[in-house]
Amino acid sequence: MTQTPARGFAPEEYAARTKRAQARMEQLGLDGLLVMSEPEVRYFSGFHTPFWQSPTRPWFLYVPASGKPIAVIPEIGAELMRRGWLEDVRTWSAPNPKDDGISLLTDLLAPLARRGGRLGVMKGHETHLRMPLADWERLMAALPGLGIADATGLVQGLRMVKSEAEIEKLAHICGIGSATFAALPGLVAEGMPLEEVFRAFRREALAQGADDAPYVVGAADQGGYADVISPPSRRPLQAGDILMLDTGCMWDGYFCDFDRNWAITRADDMARRVYDMLWRATQAGIDAARPGATCRDLFTAMSAVIAELDDSGGDIGRLGHGLGMQLTEQPSHAAFDETVLQEGMVLTLEPSLGYGDGLMMVHEEDLVVTDSAPRLLTTRAAPELPVI
Amino acid sequence: MTQTPARGFAPEEYAARTKRAQARMEQLGLDGLLVMSEPEVRYFSGFHTPFWQSPTRPWFLYVPASGKPIAVIPEIGAELMRRGWLEDVRTWSAPNPKDDGISLLTDLLAPLARRGGRLGVMKGHETHLRMPLADWERLMAALPGLGIADATGLVQGLRMVKSEAEIEKLAHICGIGSATFAALPGLVAEGMPLEEVFRAFRREALAQGADDAPYVVGAADQGGYADVISPPSRRPLQAGDILMLDTGCMWDGYFCDFDRNWAITRADDMARRVYDMLWRATQAGIDAARPGATCRDLFTAMSAVIAELDDSGGDIGRLGHGLGMQLTEQPSHAAFDETVLQEGMVLTLEPSLGYGDGLMMVHEEDLVVTDSAPRLLTTRAAPELPVI
Repeated sequence: MTQTPARGFAPEEYAARTKRAQARMEQLGLDGLLVMSEPEVRYFSGFHTPFWQSPTRPWFLYVPASGKPIAVIPEIGAELMRRGWLEDVRTWSAPNPKDDGISLLTDLLAPLARRGGRLGVMKGHETHLRMPLADWERLMAALPGLGIADATGLVQGLRMVKSEAEIEKLAHICGIGSATFAALPGLVAEGMPLEEVFRAFRREALAQGADDAPYVVGAADQGGYADVISPPSRRPLQAGDILMLDTGCMWDGYFCDFDRNWAITRADDMARRVYDMLWRATQAGIDAARPGATCRDLFTAMSAVIAELDDSGGDIGRLGHGLGMQLTEQPSHAAFDETVLQEGMVLTLEPSLGYGDGLMMVHEEDLVVTDSAPRLLTTRAAPELPVI
Repeated sequence: MTQTPARGFAPEEYAARTKRAQARMEQLGLDGLLVMSEPEVRYFSGFHTPFWQSPTRPWFLYVPASGKPIAVIPEIGAELMRRGWLEDVRTWSAPNPKDDGISLLTDLLAPLARRGGRLGVMKGHETHLRMPLADWERLMAALPGLGIADATGLVQGLRMVKSEAEIEKLAHICGIGSATFAALPGLVAEGMPLEEVFRAFRREALAQGADDAPYVVGAADQGGYADVISPPSRRPLQAGDILMLDTGCMWDGYFCDFDRNWAITRADDMARRVYDMLWRATQAGIDAARPGATCRDLFTAMSAVIAELDDSGGDIGRLGHGLGMQLTEQPSHAAFDETVLQEGMVLTLEPSLGYGDGLMMVHEEDLVVTDSAPRLLTTRAAPELPVI
């Protein structure tokens, strides 16, 4: 495992992110950028709190054409926001169903609207509007001269390429995840209900140093499993099961996202064969992950191996994705995604394969793209299906 | 602790929820209802998965004027959704940046639009649009005859009143939370970094039977703390600290949400006095929580006690809220909320108080409104500030 990095980032990190955003804004003719979802607000401000789990209050951050971002947030977050690098923190007593920050936002954006400026807002693929739609409509009605432009690509483009400090955090949590998976065979056994397997995994991840293990999914059944997003049942592990656990553990607000597969007591030939194929598909992805290649190239490289057995690829829609402050981020390893890989991108490779009567298997590893061979952040899965 | 209840719900529970929604839809002149956020999709379908933590894919559920809801979801969720009570599950291969469910939704809603029908959508207070705004705009452009009505009150009104089966789950997780808080003094001591206190709490919550403890916040400092939403520091607990932990533990998709305060080694008079006042404010809230009273009444009852020392009430915006599938739900105990309490509502009481030089303290308990005195779901906090 890596040495524990420092928490948070130096103010220079946020200043550099803001500068890069402002340079792109200028190129795109944007006079300001309004973000309101957790990773974007944190990306530019450093505001880091689990309080976002409460859906009650909206939070806004405005990135002007130059200068520091301006926060427009509920008073309950003022103390924490003011500890960060921002200077202009405007608050209201929230929740307030009549005016949850809308008049503060209107005041802030009115000068831009008066001169017919263009505001960037993330409204494209993989985004949500984290405020009430009716409030958004009210805000637009109050700012009739304001142009709205889609800033999804701008922000996602910045976030895709990680800084050294971000990579250090991602390496740390991937190390914790790897140590947790390594310990798992000693924690579970035939007869243990899957629900308890999940619980043992979470407790071990915390003991290994994770801040939390918010995402744990998995499955276990005879010769394989049928889906990969269900919560666990009380069914005990049985000889002949294939057990899969997939986790997003978190440290200082950064995620790992990878899985491991095991056979309980014994494995049949088909499961061994599928495992081997997915291990090789992952390897093909690792070999292809070079700057200049596209996400489509990664998809094609992994698909070619999977096609030995299955040409559907198991319809999970893609074979991996970006990783960072979110469990899944842009880009997508899919035929539609022509994103060109760059040094500093942190990616998962996640080939999956359908077989038998509705069974499937998934492998996953996390890596960072470098100027030569990628650096694997996870301890590579065993080349042969391990037996517990 | 309560006996572990059964997981999930009988199909009759979902059928009853749908019938109640359809009765309200008829009263309000709605021809259909479209929901897309996790608790709402789960409320009507039983679809329960941590996969929502990935922001990549949108998920839609349509409740028609009569008959079962119709799911429009990514193929990766088909297996799990079809295990539930729904019959009509329409899927697409997601992610698909060009068409993430929009043409499926257009086909589904076109007949409604052609006859100038009205679709209910949650667009009010405490809601988000969990799909790209640009996709929403495309959908509206494709369905020009469709009327959109705000269904926030309809859905929140249904969800506020819990069934017996829901209350059983909430009682179970509140029992687990109470047992975890009871064990905490044996797990922490002077000198332990706050970060490790959080980790010990999470591990204990899992050991006590929680599925997860996704929300843990808290603070510790001399004589009190200054905010209640920060992640933990590495600062060791010191004699004279007031330690507060606030948690949302989860079991089978239902939350507890309450906190506890302790003094480390010794407590000063001011902290004892504030603790006592908040304990009595909570008691005033418990005494006022009767069917027919309003949330404003609860707010007033608690505020009256707090006003002995502080008339700002600590600006966290409200003194408690609803609780269920989300850490915080409607209603709000605030001067603006005239929601009338009904049997079956599960509520937190959360009085807070500002004192000294920027310090604050918060108490919280969870209860269910009955036809007489409320049933406390949490083990009541000690009447005097406990010392570790």
